Amino acid sequence: MAVGLELPGVLHPVKGVELGVAQAGIRKPNRRDLVVFALSPSTRCAAVFTRNAFRAAPVIVAQRHLQQASPRALVINTGNANAGTGDEGIVHAEQTCRWVSESLGCQPHEVLPFSTGVIGEPFPAERLHAGLPEALAHLAVGGWLEAAYGIMTTDTLPKAYSKQVQIDGRVITITGICKGAGMIRPDMATMLAFIATDAALAQADLDELLHRCVARSFNCITVDGDTSTNDACCLLATGAAGSEIPLNSSAGAQLEAAMCEVCIWLAQAIVRDGEGATKFLTIKVEEAATAMEARQVADAIAHSPLVKTACYASDPNWGRILAAVGRAGVKDLDVGRIAIHLDEVQVVTRGQLNPAYREEQGARVMAQDEISISVQLGRGTAAATVWTCDFSHDYVTINAEYRT
Amino acid sequence: MAVGLELPGVLHPVKGVELGVAQAGIRKPNRRDLVVFALSPSTRCAAVFTRNAFRAAPVIVAQRHLQQASPRALVINTGNANAGTGDEGIVHAEQTCRWVSESLGCQPHEVLPFSTGVIGEPFPAERLHAGLPEALAHLAVGGWLEAAYGIMTTDTLPKAYSKQVQIDGRVITITGICKGAGMIRPDMATMLAFIATDAALAQADLDELLHRCVARSFNCITVDGDTSTNDACCLLATGAAGSEIPLNSSAGAQLEAAMCEVCIWLAQAIVRDGEGATKFLTIKVEEAATAMEARQVADAIAHSPLVKTACYASDPNWGRILAAVGRAGVKDLDVGRIAIHLDEVQVVTRGQLNPAYREEQGARVMAQDEISISVQLGRGTAAATVWTCDFSHDYVTINAEYRT
Repeated sequence: MAVGLELPGVLHPVKGVELGVAQAGIRKPNRRDLVVFALSPSTRCAAVFTRNAFRAAPVIVAQRHLQQASPRALVINTGNANAGTGDEGIVHAEQTCRWVSESLGCQPHEVLPFSTGVIGEPFPAERLHAGLPEALAHLAVGGWLEAAYGIMTTDTLPKAYSKQVQIDGRVITITGICKGAGMIRPDMATMLAFIATDAALAQADLDELLHRCVARSFNCITVDGDTSTNDACCLLATGAAGSEIPLNSSAGAQLEAAMCEVCIWLAQAIVRDGEGATKFLTIKVEEAATAMEARQVADAIAHSPLVKTACYASDPNWGRILAAVGRAGVKDLDVGRIAIHLDEVQVVTRGQLNPAYREEQGARVMAQDEISISVQLGRGTAAATVWTCDFSHDYVTINAEYRT
Repeated sequence: MAVGLELPGVLHPVKGVELGVAQAGIRKPNRRDLVVFALSPSTRCAAVFTRNAFRAAPVIVAQRHLQQASPRALVINTGNANAGTGDEGIVHAEQTCRWVSESLGCQPHEVLPFSTGVIGEPFPAERLHAGLPEALAHLAVGGWLEAAYGIMTTDTLPKAYSKQVQIDGRVITITGICKGAGMIRPDMATMLAFIATDAALAQADLDELLHRCVARSFNCITVDGDTSTNDACCLLATGAAGSEIPLNSSAGAQLEAAMCEVCIWLAQAIVRDGEGATKFLTIKVEEAATAMEARQVADAIAHSPLVKTACYASDPNWGRILAAVGRAGVKDLDVGRIAIHLDEVQVVTRGQLNPAYREEQGARVMAQDEISISVQLGRGTAAATVWTCDFSHDYVTINAEYRT
């Protein structure tokens, strides 16, 4: 029941990236649950990982491997997060990399492992091992859609986006996939996302590009405020499209704009497919004293179960929005300066009901699938935007039944 | 569907406090929605109010009045919070106090107003005015149970507790009522609670007593992390039981213990009747470096929708608990030292699954109505306890339909 999300359109292959998918039966049979990315030797990789103190074993191993070399392969499984599995989990993640490296003829530390699924259960490494030949046999540059299916957990639709852009006479391709649904919260890549481009970038520029794009996309989404132990966002640049593009150049700016578009599309797709989501909400906070303060208020609104259930009910309950603003912890907040808009309808002016507002206007906005809630604090010029979804009966159903 | 909460037992009158209730039709007809407390002239009052920046009009007025004099009356209405109502709301709250003062023969600033209900709708002062005579006509020392009914909103049961304790040969009575349900979060009185004793206390001791008791009771509960614009906790000491009890004496310690018992009972009652609650959860964090850090982790667990839905499903999903601990923001957390218990069952040891743990053990604990989740951080000796409830389908239903 994703909001405004459809099956992916055309996914352009990225020269230098081959993808293979298998049904390894890691948790359940007859389900695509294993994906391998095989990368050309020229590929560079930037990645950001969860900031949760409980990093899963594959996160620890991937971070370690990334420090040693540029990867030649990624291996991703669903069904088991290999988190809370202690030393044994590390052994399993290392073993997984070794198996992949043996098949592809690279070093174990040239493989990055990623896992998603249930936390705290022993990792069924042997099943992954048994499924690897199938995934490797399918390796193909056209495997993006299959891979998007292969990384899904409670997602209802595969999420993938592709864009081609002409830069200095060359066609640059960017294609990405992601998975998410619940346990999504900003403050670092709390989902799995894999984006590849055939552009060539210096390592430092690639790292910087990823950070800039993540700050404007994946770090601006939240479903339920929970972060995961596993999640990661990985940006690959194969360099197949020719000479390096410096990030701080007009060509670099074009590339950055296209990359941000892909990342924002993917990030929003995660929210649109948020567990039980029936509404896509854009929370904008403007006229804040600082960007941090703006974000703080946006988060308070986006995480309020009372606001989210009101949105589910299409109820223009601005009192709950106002209460969330009030508890966001902004110092010396002058409530007499605050305005609230639902889309273009001004509901609150100077901290109280706008005399010109009529409930029908708010009700009309709230009845839509996509709603913008904007708050003006009257304190400055800083702003922040967060994307989230409503809180429905289905959220409870999905999360109450996930393991059963 | 409150968890382990029954109708109140015997409620001892508190000499010096009379209570009267009316059906004023403030929001809906045929509903007790107006309560008046008439207080003897010797009564002293301590109160704590919401820290939400959007304080409702009655909160602003009550705080102002309290600075001017000890109150002779409280007036409480449900159905409309008189919040987000601007200057007009202040006028209505002042007017309400004037009406009560005229009937009781005291000064307007000797009346404290309290409101709870929908935020941001014009306050129907005239309806309250019309209901006042009925409430005043019913004033009686035996009105506590009626008053407990009269302050209910989405509560399913009235909440009241009474205790008598013999101190230095005198019988001291403490009786209190409260209302809550949703929009409950620690960090000050985010509900309405009114507690009275016939003990005599100096004003400074009364203030201190309230703060100590609130810190151990109402500030340790959370239902959904939202705070309200209105909520307050009010402690009245009529002095009818004779000479002053110094707080820092053995008699004072006895009084404090009894008062804390009453406050904890009332606070827990709010959680037990949390909107849609099917489980009562005690979250204990131990072996923290500081009390603040312990509380931070306890809150992260108590506010995690993923933990709360797992509890609803009776699912011993310790991975979600572990993930919540990991995102609580504790600096330099060594996950290899962490233990997690469900009641007495040790599920996690040294950051991973306890080898001796069997899923049936956890499932047995989680099947209960009352569950204790305890986390040992292995960092020090500080601890914190938070009480909360699970997150059910009914929570969504109640909050999606509140205004309809």
